[in-house]
Amino acid sequence: MRMAFIGLGVMGYPMAGHLVKAGHEVTVYNRSQDKAAAWATAFAGKTAATPGAAAAAADVVCVCVGNDDDVRAVIFGTDGALAGISPGSLLIDHTTASASLARELHAVTGQQGVGFLDAPVSGGQAGAENGALTIMVGGDRHDYDRAEPALAAYARACQYIGPAGSGQLAKMVNQICIAGIVQGLSEGLHFARRAGLDVDAVIGAISKGAAQSWQMENRWQTMVNGEFEFGFAVEWMRKDLGMTLDEAGRNGARLDMTRLVDNYYAEVQELGGNRWDTSSLIARLERT
Amino acid sequence: MRMAFIGLGVMGYPMAGHLVKAGHEVTVYNRSQDKAAAWATAFAGKTAATPGAAAAAADVVCVCVGNDDDVRAVIFGTDGALAGISPGSLLIDHTTASASLARELHAVTGQQGVGFLDAPVSGGQAGAENGALTIMVGGDRHDYDRAEPALAAYARACQYIGPAGSGQLAKMVNQICIAGIVQGLSEGLHFARRAGLDVDAVIGAISKGAAQSWQMENRWQTMVNGEFEFGFAVEWMRKDLGMTLDEAGRNGARLDMTRLVDNYYAEVQELGGNRWDTSSLIARLERT
Repeated sequence: MRMAFIGLGVMGYPMAGHLVKAGHEVTVYNRSQDKAAAWATAFAGKTAATPGAAAAAADVVCVCVGNDDDVRAVIFGTDGALAGISPGSLLIDHTTASASLARELHAVTGQQGVGFLDAPVSGGQAGAENGALTIMVGGDRHDYDRAEPALAAYARACQYIGPAGSGQLAKMVNQICIAGIVQGLSEGLHFARRAGLDVDAVIGAISKGAAQSWQMENRWQTMVNGEFEFGFAVEWMRKDLGMTLDEAGRNGARLDMTRLVDNYYAEVQELGGNRWDTSSLIARLERT
Repeated sequence: MRMAFIGLGVMGYPMAGHLVKAGHEVTVYNRSQDKAAAWATAFAGKTAATPGAAAAAADVVCVCVGNDDDVRAVIFGTDGALAGISPGSLLIDHTTASASLARELHAVTGQQGVGFLDAPVSGGQAGAENGALTIMVGGDRHDYDRAEPALAAYARACQYIGPAGSGQLAKMVNQICIAGIVQGLSEGLHFARRAGLDVDAVIGAISKGAAQSWQMENRWQTMVNGEFEFGFAVEWMRKDLGMTLDEAGRNGARLDMTRLVDNYYAEVQELGGNRWDTSSLIARLERT
């Protein structure tokens, strides 16, 4: 399939590479052109000078950039993807962005005869590199069915959620759950240390039962060690929780704990933890 | 081995039965003697009229009652276990109680030449019935080594944590982690419904990644259905969180979220949810 990939960050770079390995003809665009050239050398792919030029060379156009403003720039901007994309094509946004932007993009592309899917991912940099991402997809079902074979290049699991915006909303549910798990685990580990417990023995006892979580299994040791270099950064989590709380303001959901944890992440940023991973919530508790 | 079991509640009744099935000679005591008689008929065991009489017939005496006051009553009271227990015996308290009580019992029994272990369990009624409990044990290591073969009758996992009180403290860590997980999951499911999402599809997408938890896997569907009849009751959770927050007051741990969730459970009690299970945190969010 002729594909374009716009945005070669820590996620997009390996994702675009997986598309090549899966046999697709891939044209990439990146704001920093050096990165695009390096990618083209590594994967024997093509580069384009603008998002529009990349989109013009493709039937399926994937975007993976930083936030709503970045998505708007590469899609709506001068020489943006919409300037080059052909009717009948499909635009897939892997950026974790707002649900309202997803609905807007779905409406605007629809007027051009272009399909749109909001398709944020989870699984982090390792998931992107190993082609083991989870993808939550909103949009029209028939567009999802067209996209799924291509997405399989970097997905371990791909799930259609519902109409435009649903992928973004599902990602928000994911982040809400993580906020509670990590804060609970942080307080639990912090309490264990203050109580003078052998934390290894405690985790050995509780990690198979009702307190079990992926975060406990994969992060307790690094949290106790004060090592926070294992993935999704606090600044990105704050962006996601901010969008989540905005959406809750619209739909009336009561997210008391989520709001509190968002404030805690702000405290972590004040400690210098902007680039630490999300497990660094424990750091604000361990200050003496 | 000659064993006694004091307290035949939803946990103790099947636990004492597993001891018989494992080949031990078991004498039970229960405040309500009808329950003890029923147990003796069901398991071909013996009953005693007082905790002291039960303890006099045993080398290992297990206790599983409601709270600190209940433990004090059956151990220190007139005809309590300490009145009958022999030097060289072992007293094991499976009650989830305070760490300070465990330290006191360890000291007092030590003066009588009796070993003491605080050994709270997790795994709930189903774990007790299936002999699949997790047991967190504090006390002297040599006493733990003596007890472990007997505890195997109802344990899936048995973990020595450290000196007297450590079992209770480990159980508190467990409850702290659960508080965060369940509150996060409650807010996530509540948000998903307010956003109009297909919750089944959302859980399908997020339940294998960084948001995964035992609670998500085992409780999301019943939480969405408003069914809260699956285990550990809110009133017991409040007892445990109350002891946890007391202990944090002593050791200086900062348990902001745990304190908040304890307040949320109080709100659930006001909704009539005293006997609902811990997943009922979602109920206070779903009030319109």
